Amino acid sequence: MLERAVSEREQHALAMIERVRSRKPQFRDAQITMAHGAGGKASRTLVEGLLAPAFASEALAALDDAGTVEAGGVGLALTTDSFVVSPLAFPGGSIGELAVNGTVNDLAVSGARPVALTLSLILEEGLPAEVLRREVDAIARAATAAGVDIVAGDTKVVERGHCDGMYVTTTGLGHVDPRARLSPGSLQPGDRILLSGPIGAHGTAVMLARGEFELDAPVESDTRSLWPAVDAVLDAAGPSLRAMRDATRGGVATVLNELARASGVAIVVREAAVPVPPAVTGACEILGIDPMYVANEGKLVAVVGPGGADAALAALRSHPLGAEAAVVGEVRTEPPGMVLVETAFGGRRVMDVLVGDPLPRIC
Amino acid sequence: MLERAVSEREQHALAMIERVRSRKPQFRDAQITMAHGAGGKASRTLVEGLLAPAFASEALAALDDAGTVEAGGVGLALTTDSFVVSPLAFPGGSIGELAVNGTVNDLAVSGARPVALTLSLILEEGLPAEVLRREVDAIARAATAAGVDIVAGDTKVVERGHCDGMYVTTTGLGHVDPRARLSPGSLQPGDRILLSGPIGAHGTAVMLARGEFELDAPVESDTRSLWPAVDAVLDAAGPSLRAMRDATRGGVATVLNELARASGVAIVVREAAVPVPPAVTGACEILGIDPMYVANEGKLVAVVGPGGADAALAALRSHPLGAEAAVVGEVRTEPPGMVLVETAFGGRRVMDVLVGDPLPRIC
Repeated sequence: MLERAVSEREQHALAMIERVRSRKPQFRDAQITMAHGAGGKASRTLVEGLLAPAFASEALAALDDAGTVEAGGVGLALTTDSFVVSPLAFPGGSIGELAVNGTVNDLAVSGARPVALTLSLILEEGLPAEVLRREVDAIARAATAAGVDIVAGDTKVVERGHCDGMYVTTTGLGHVDPRARLSPGSLQPGDRILLSGPIGAHGTAVMLARGEFELDAPVESDTRSLWPAVDAVLDAAGPSLRAMRDATRGGVATVLNELARASGVAIVVREAAVPVPPAVTGACEILGIDPMYVANEGKLVAVVGPGGADAALAALRSHPLGAEAAVVGEVRTEPPGMVLVETAFGGRRVMDVLVGDPLPRIC
Repeated sequence: MLERAVSEREQHALAMIERVRSRKPQFRDAQITMAHGAGGKASRTLVEGLLAPAFASEALAALDDAGTVEAGGVGLALTTDSFVVSPLAFPGGSIGELAVNGTVNDLAVSGARPVALTLSLILEEGLPAEVLRREVDAIARAATAAGVDIVAGDTKVVERGHCDGMYVTTTGLGHVDPRARLSPGSLQPGDRILLSGPIGAHGTAVMLARGEFELDAPVESDTRSLWPAVDAVLDAAGPSLRAMRDATRGGVATVLNELARASGVAIVVREAAVPVPPAVTGACEILGIDPMYVANEGKLVAVVGPGGADAALAALRSHPLGAEAAVVGEVRTEPPGMVLVETAFGGRRVMDVLVGDPLPRIC
């Protein structure tokens, strides 16, 4: 189906993207804008053009979900995330739960068993104690559910108006699983793209909870720990598992672009195979947003060699959190570094990383 | 000198403090106030009354500078801190340098060699790029100086006005040093209290940099990595080293109170032996603040058994950052859990933890 020639229009678009991408990213902006935090091109320019070079850090340059460290001969993974979601609570979750699951999931998709978390709170003067209690309980419950201990913490308070109630930073320590041989640069033509379930719920739920739109749809955040799903896939796919990502900021589209780029391969996605809940489809259509770019907080993308794909899919589906898992695409040779979407009508378009993001502050 | 009987006035004060302390701390406030972030009694109530019980975490309940974790049979230390200092830059340092050194030092005084850091930035929309570049450079320089790699990072952007330029959260991973057998509960009567150098510079420098006071004094922050000093003390004092703390939020007074309380011993400090730079003394006198409560970012308190105290002092003094190290007091039996200060005039007073703090947002 995807063997037809690339059209002239496509070739033009691809050449343009290729030209832009081949430039070394340089951070040239005079100021920070919301786009720098949205997970798209501006975020990448900031990381690749300023942060990673300054710290001379390969781990940061790789834009991986977690960095690896060796201590005493043991392979460890470390990951950190600040959560600034607004509003603090939304259908299906809240900032505390998100802060635990988001960090646990970054470890999990790096092939590391989550072991411990640290928790740093920035609280706004005047924050009602009941809100803090609620979030502390949410953090404790999520940590218990994910099987991680909170081993260190910090609390700072800033004056009224200098924070949105609370910002939460969690850092996760994981033990690299000996079954995991993962690298975003290891994708091979013929590999299958698996998605653990329906997409777009988290970002849509947060957006609707802001009340900026005259929209009311029954959408709940999908925030949860992905470690059980990762554990199952590691067992089932064995060495044919190439890479995993949780599709948070920037959504599935961004994750696929990062993988295609890191491996110098093309990824072709069959749009009709991507599960999207009807309420998400509806809300996104009204708002003019593609669900492929909307954040998820409990969905992973796994790339598996053809030999292990069926077993990995079966393993995901045997788990409640992967009941609707699907193979949504595959890896091709051409055009390298690009993600193409095959629409239900047989059309094909390039799905690039967004320049900005229609949904800031969703995590 | 300290053998005279406790006066009636002292007995009354001690009995009052004892009564308050014997109560289980309960977090009963309706709202968060600046005092909850200042490192004194309100901070402790928040941690001991709400956070530690919720997370059922022994590491948090111990109020240690770092939590310990075992992974694959290796002893690791984890610590985290959010930095919200205002202004971002001050004489002697800036938020970026502080964020590296503060976390490195929490590992160091826990007896762990700093190995890796994670870095999470919350940036304010509109932050000038030059400020970000300056802080990124400061972070990179401080990390290089401290010998740690930055292995993972995150960046979020919040709308204009929802943050003070930038908040920085660093988390440190350390490898527990086999020479270290440290515990805040291990102090014994007769132990010596060592201080690695003059106190009060950091908090005073930040306070003056705010420009709220008509004061201009040549005070620079003492921010730096303490690992070289810790390394030297671990070597010199061997098993007679009981505990170390870096005297940040709440200053030397708060650190000594935590140690006295954890060990159920008294600590007596000779005020005249505590080195305070003249400019700090002057500024603190005008502002009515005791330098013992002012934050330091490059000073440690070490408690050493009598057999190792001379060697530990010599080791500190042989190092540039400990050139003015001093023995400033010792551990006694009575009154348990209390810190007493012997003034230059032969008087004696209780030095308790502060209820609030005159210096918020200093780290």
